[in-house]
Amino acid sequence: MDFPGLKLDLSSLGEKNRPDPATRYDLLILGGGPAAMSAAVYAARKMLRVAMIAKDYGGQVAWASEIENYLGFMSISGQELVDRFVEQVKEFKVPVAKGEKVVRVEKGFFVHAESGAVFTGNAVLLATGKRDRPLNVPGEKELVGHGVAYCSTCDAPFYRGKKVAVAGGGNSAFTAALDLLKVDATVTLINFVEGWQADPVMLESAKKHGDRVAYLDQHEVVRIEGTGKVSGVAVRDRRTGEEKQLDVSGIFVEIGLLPNSEPVNGLVDLNDYKEVVIDCFCRTSLEGLFAAGDVTTVPHKQIVISAGEGAKAALSAYDYLTRRGMI
Amino acid sequence: MDFPGLKLDLSSLGEKNRPDPATRYDLLILGGGPAAMSAAVYAARKMLRVAMIAKDYGGQVAWASEIENYLGFMSISGQELVDRFVEQVKEFKVPVAKGEKVVRVEKGFFVHAESGAVFTGNAVLLATGKRDRPLNVPGEKELVGHGVAYCSTCDAPFYRGKKVAVAGGGNSAFTAALDLLKVDATVTLINFVEGWQADPVMLESAKKHGDRVAYLDQHEVVRIEGTGKVSGVAVRDRRTGEEKQLDVSGIFVEIGLLPNSEPVNGLVDLNDYKEVVIDCFCRTSLEGLFAAGDVTTVPHKQIVISAGEGAKAALSAYDYLTRRGMI
Repeated sequence: MDFPGLKLDLSSLGEKNRPDPATRYDLLILGGGPAAMSAAVYAARKMLRVAMIAKDYGGQVAWASEIENYLGFMSISGQELVDRFVEQVKEFKVPVAKGEKVVRVEKGFFVHAESGAVFTGNAVLLATGKRDRPLNVPGEKELVGHGVAYCSTCDAPFYRGKKVAVAGGGNSAFTAALDLLKVDATVTLINFVEGWQADPVMLESAKKHGDRVAYLDQHEVVRIEGTGKVSGVAVRDRRTGEEKQLDVSGIFVEIGLLPNSEPVNGLVDLNDYKEVVIDCFCRTSLEGLFAAGDVTTVPHKQIVISAGEGAKAALSAYDYLTRRGMI
Repeated sequence: MDFPGLKLDLSSLGEKNRPDPATRYDLLILGGGPAAMSAAVYAARKMLRVAMIAKDYGGQVAWASEIENYLGFMSISGQELVDRFVEQVKEFKVPVAKGEKVVRVEKGFFVHAESGAVFTGNAVLLATGKRDRPLNVPGEKELVGHGVAYCSTCDAPFYRGKKVAVAGGGNSAFTAALDLLKVDATVTLINFVEGWQADPVMLESAKKHGDRVAYLDQHEVVRIEGTGKVSGVAVRDRRTGEEKQLDVSGIFVEIGLLPNSEPVNGLVDLNDYKEVVIDCFCRTSLEGLFAAGDVTTVPHKQIVISAGEGAKAALSAYDYLTRRGMI
């Protein structure tokens, strides 16, 4: 077999049921979030030889303080939901190369990990998710889930009647602002560049709320303050250098997303935001390579949507392998 | 307001929180399955004025004996999962016109129920699901979930190593047969008409399994036997009239599906199977009318996929209402 990779002793990485680099799998699932895990469950139930390659489990879900929009759970913490997902994947004995970061997918398919390990499969499902573009200011990392939020659909309802900052000036920032205004929050928008880039209709909708919205154009967030939870945000006027304090109990960071599509850059079609372009069957522009969840062009990045897309992609991969006579 | 409907005293139907026929809702959700309920949760969290019109809760999920492919639950009965969904929708205080069967959606939008009640909304989400085309033979209805199954992806793993009948001769019948062969079942295919209609590749795949598959062409299922669970199936050769007994512990009925798209027939595009044609945003051919789940062209009819599609549709409806300045 044309197998260019090193054979590592993966058992040393501390997990028992790990994929074998010498095996050609039916399906390799890249990622460890809801899309990847839902796909693993479906692929395992179809008795595909399937393996997961996941840097860690849960993806962005693990960050969420409280989830009340995943159908089946009235209220559950992100970590608790992830634990249930992991338990379910383990029940199906799907081997997982945990800790391996995928750096490149090569046609064939060969999946190259940062460690040098290479995994081979007849089909690949990319479900590597996205990462929020962080502000990279002091206090941000420490207070994630405790006042620092990246998803207004998920978290706006927890800020009912409160004062909240939103960093960003585009559609997602205004979506967050409107979600917050809907729950009677008072919002301060903080825009780094000059001029608001959101659609006019979004600007108009925000304007309707009068002085419940404050606009800080050409301001930057300097730091996020608070011990255990956010108590304020320091901003600087980029024209005057003047610094001031915002008395808020939360900040939504809406300055863009970075899809983790680097491993397939140049291999399949990406859109302008570097999302993997998929059709309604989770097929990419390359036969045999499927994609699901936040790394794709799917609208609305939500846990239940990713779980659904992962299932869809696994079943599409199964159909592909069946029709090709590969299983 | 142009309101053609009767105002019924719906409280008499026995549920407290029911939609008001005199209110124009932001979004009317038609159906009571996973797509509808997931949509209700998302719409409620966006603080839309939303109402559900549902003949019953759970749709086809309620029939499933055991579910192990809904991410988050290692193993749960269909009814138990539905109960959790309902509880969650109730938590968000979404009014539900339970017991009302939708017969027609009129542009505007006016939703006409069989009872004569009419509900109005600025947007509509059709999530009325599908129904399996039943064999309509004695024993079928009584043994659903106890050996009579309609979904091989869901239920094939429970027939590991057993003898099973599959009614049907098309792709879905062969998909069920292959799913069953994968788990080492022995399969008898029962085809009503002359000649097998599945794709050649499916026929070939089945052939590979040799005498683990039996083919009864031009046979009809006469009755399903068993007390409490399936113990056999009686079939009749349509050429000779000869009747015989199959010793099987299950039968998968794969003779087609009927999407519950009748209420929008003539209003939006349907495909040849009468499924509502949607794009990747769950938009139909008519602005303001969205559709999600099994009633649509979405590939693979699965609970987690429907839950994801419902969320997607609700968020698409929210975007539509926002951009139209309707909320």
